[in-house]
Amino acid sequence: MDKVVVYDTTLRDGAQTEGISFSVADKLKIARRLVEMGFDYVEGGWPGSNPKDLEFFGQVARDPVLREKVTAFGSTRRKNTRPADDENLQRLCSCGVKTVTLFGKTWDLHVTRALNTTLEENLAMIRESVAYLKEQGLEVIYDAEHFFDGYKENPDYALATLEAAVSAGASTLVLCDTNGGSMPWEVEAAVRRVVEKFPRVTVGIHAHNDTGMAVANTVVAVKAGARHVQGTVNGYGERCGNADLCAVLPNLTFKCGFTTLPRESFSRLVELSRYVSEVANVHPYPQQPYVGMSAFAHKGGVHVSAIMKEPRCYEHIDPSLVGNRRRVLVSELAGQSNLLYKLRELNLDLPSQGEVARQILAELKELERQGFQFESAEASFELLVRRAANGYERPFVLESLRILTELKEGGAVHAEATIKLRVGDKVVHTAAEGNGPVNALDNALRKALEQFYPAIKRMRLVDYKVRVLDGTAGTGAVVRVLIETGDGQRTWVTVGVSPNIIEASWQALADSFTYGLLKQAE
Amino acid sequence: MDKVVVYDTTLRDGAQTEGISFSVADKLKIARRLVEMGFDYVEGGWPGSNPKDLEFFGQVARDPVLREKVTAFGSTRRKNTRPADDENLQRLCSCGVKTVTLFGKTWDLHVTRALNTTLEENLAMIRESVAYLKEQGLEVIYDAEHFFDGYKENPDYALATLEAAVSAGASTLVLCDTNGGSMPWEVEAAVRRVVEKFPRVTVGIHAHNDTGMAVANTVVAVKAGARHVQGTVNGYGERCGNADLCAVLPNLTFKCGFTTLPRESFSRLVELSRYVSEVANVHPYPQQPYVGMSAFAHKGGVHVSAIMKEPRCYEHIDPSLVGNRRRVLVSELAGQSNLLYKLRELNLDLPSQGEVARQILAELKELERQGFQFESAEASFELLVRRAANGYERPFVLESLRILTELKEGGAVHAEATIKLRVGDKVVHTAAEGNGPVNALDNALRKALEQFYPAIKRMRLVDYKVRVLDGTAGTGAVVRVLIETGDGQRTWVTVGVSPNIIEASWQALADSFTYGLLKQAE
Repeated sequence: MDKVVVYDTTLRDGAQTEGISFSVADKLKIARRLVEMGFDYVEGGWPGSNPKDLEFFGQVARDPVLREKVTAFGSTRRKNTRPADDENLQRLCSCGVKTVTLFGKTWDLHVTRALNTTLEENLAMIRESVAYLKEQGLEVIYDAEHFFDGYKENPDYALATLEAAVSAGASTLVLCDTNGGSMPWEVEAAVRRVVEKFPRVTVGIHAHNDTGMAVANTVVAVKAGARHVQGTVNGYGERCGNADLCAVLPNLTFKCGFTTLPRESFSRLVELSRYVSEVANVHPYPQQPYVGMSAFAHKGGVHVSAIMKEPRCYEHIDPSLVGNRRRVLVSELAGQSNLLYKLRELNLDLPSQGEVARQILAELKELERQGFQFESAEASFELLVRRAANGYERPFVLESLRILTELKEGGAVHAEATIKLRVGDKVVHTAAEGNGPVNALDNALRKALEQFYPAIKRMRLVDYKVRVLDGTAGTGAVVRVLIETGDGQRTWVTVGVSPNIIEASWQALADSFTYGLLKQAE
Repeated sequence: MDKVVVYDTTLRDGAQTEGISFSVADKLKIARRLVEMGFDYVEGGWPGSNPKDLEFFGQVARDPVLREKVTAFGSTRRKNTRPADDENLQRLCSCGVKTVTLFGKTWDLHVTRALNTTLEENLAMIRESVAYLKEQGLEVIYDAEHFFDGYKENPDYALATLEAAVSAGASTLVLCDTNGGSMPWEVEAAVRRVVEKFPRVTVGIHAHNDTGMAVANTVVAVKAGARHVQGTVNGYGERCGNADLCAVLPNLTFKCGFTTLPRESFSRLVELSRYVSEVANVHPYPQQPYVGMSAFAHKGGVHVSAIMKEPRCYEHIDPSLVGNRRRVLVSELAGQSNLLYKLRELNLDLPSQGEVARQILAELKELERQGFQFESAEASFELLVRRAANGYERPFVLESLRILTELKEGGAVHAEATIKLRVGDKVVHTAAEGNGPVNALDNALRKALEQFYPAIKRMRLVDYKVRVLDGTAGTGAVVRVLIETGDGQRTWVTVGVSPNIIEASWQALADSFTYGLLKQAE
């Protein structure tokens, strides 16, 4: 089927996201990963607009693989200047890449109001800038900024700007929905018209997500004849972000039959998404299409029993195609079939029918009624199941714990925990401080256990969450604590519930270390 | 322009989101808010499927406003059963609502594989179930589960299932993209066909976001003739979620000219989105279309200067239409005008320019950097402003407070607080117990203050919320506590932030009583 060119702008438009700031090393790592996975172009930034991009392009120029794929981004020449005298164009020419993406104004409003020049001069700016870059031997991709807004208000002028770029040698015309306000049918009609009018060049699409339409607008544009898509990993970008390539690419490939990335790269799509969110230091979005943690997670009991008979019943594609996996959640909405599935998944040698299973299910429902939530706390769920089996032994048992918190005038704060545990036939009694009562408890528990289980040292708390379950009870409300723990190789989540936050935290912490020790022993 | 019926399923499909678990009180609060804003239908859940929904519908039946708008959800009768003998249908009839949403199978694969029955029996199940509910005087909305998958594989059978529902009296046919795998052009063609074939009933759309197309598919369906949209606040829902009504409704209203919610409700859309995410205890998604914190945030300097000349340059709509606001991410100016705006809003007689204002602004920024959030805690904000003014006196001052929490083997829990305060020139030193450390603190503080300020007795904690701000610091993370207090006439919210939950709670509690006493004195 037709090839669609894949153009990533995570390092340029994605870096405009509120809260994201890539270092030069981050940009190089991401660029290498994208090139390795077969992205056709990786937009690197504006050369020379800041010291970071200057250094980045310096490194790219010295790397024969990156040079081929990384593009530099910049605007048409300033008004009333010759291209040879325009600093920006000079930087694009000298930065060492083979392809330049040049953006220009399409919308008459912008030409007259933002640039404060004439419609004629803007056409000359486009034509002369493209021609100049071509003379330097560069490939030129032309980004028509605000194309759809311009086309809606003054279609003749919008098309004239494209004509200026094509006549000067641009090989790709990218239609940008810069403000992200266009509807799919508007995009479709405009793309169709441009494809008809400029049959010799590649037409591309660059969509923003301000109306929640970025993915749809991109795919619809390809259906209408575009063969070049721009977007970012995870949809990062200014305001509501750009088109999410993690959804656009599987849609084009698995739903529409186009060729995009090499097929084997798709099985690494989840890995790419998590990797970039890790580098960007942004929490992954669990509901993200295709690649999110929850994208193939099933909660309702009816769904689960149907899926076990026939996955197509509730899965639009096989999750492994994009490197994701099916997850079955255990909750009050679940029935026997969820439990069955979980037991199999956990590889637990327990009868899924009969008395033990009924007992587990009853305990599960009672705990969930109290406010426990096992769908996100799979480690606590596994411990609950194991405790129901014969021969289970706890690695430690609480005798008592006491936490003292003090606040003094002027803001001095102090928290201290003392803890007494039985480990086998030994008793350990110790104390520790912390910056709050739960932190002090955590420190005391570790201190007590480390002498018996040195593996505890490798366990690190990754996330700690508190949810007040029924706020109307005020400070007497029941709280749920979720704790995520990691040991460098895997992470697991445990839960505790009580009107006393110390007790809830104790339950989750105790489960967290118990589970870690169990897995270590296995 | 045409009216599009707005059907919310946050409480049913939204509750399927991984990590979301609404209490009965949560569900009632959200339902009231939606009804108040003019949603046409609020789907409440499956009556009787679990104790929580049973209690919820019990409360709804006693509330004359909710009864009119809340719908109950359930499936067609079981195979080979009479409707009168079907437990699910009985529950739908007896739960006290006026409208029932009944779902049935459209896709032959599901009929034969999941239900394990014949295509004929499935048609009878639909026809007889709808007819039975109609006989009981209920309005029936028919949800055609997996409509688009079924229509793609066996269009005649899919249409026959709709015919069965219509002939038995369903007034709305909702076409569900249950697996979320459909492309906009597929949705458009199928909706068009159904609208032509069933001109007497309302056609609806229920889209899931597995390909990132839920919003687009919903809007495209309306363009193709659907006049009923189903979705959830913030797009919550199983896997990748449902269509986000916070994007669907402004798209239909502001981009396509349909009538949906009353116009004045749109200016509360951001408030609704934040409210539901707060109740669900899910972090708001900053890049969410229309209502996200970043949706109208401008980072690039070029954009900002263009926007100051002409907002249309980089904003697809006026943010205030949906209750959002433009943010410029550089912000000395934005800060001043914010403060000015707030001072006017609170009717505070303070100079908004000059030394005091600059001092307040600096403190505000420092506190927000630490994690305080004053947009939801206006009482703490007002106290901050008043403390900066001359002549302010605190009604009480903390000397020291100490909280002891104990846990013993077997689950015995004990919490005790001692507190020493100065009130004017007197010192009070007392102690109290509670079911957790924060509750003990609350009790001790009340006990200490009541002898001086009997008005405290009327103040009641309405809501207590804890949010961990940076989970990656584990149990040492900074937490934000929000406390809502009421005195029977009004409610107010205060905030505290600290790595120590006791200290954060103390700040919010102390502000809460201080504010209540201040208002009482006025």
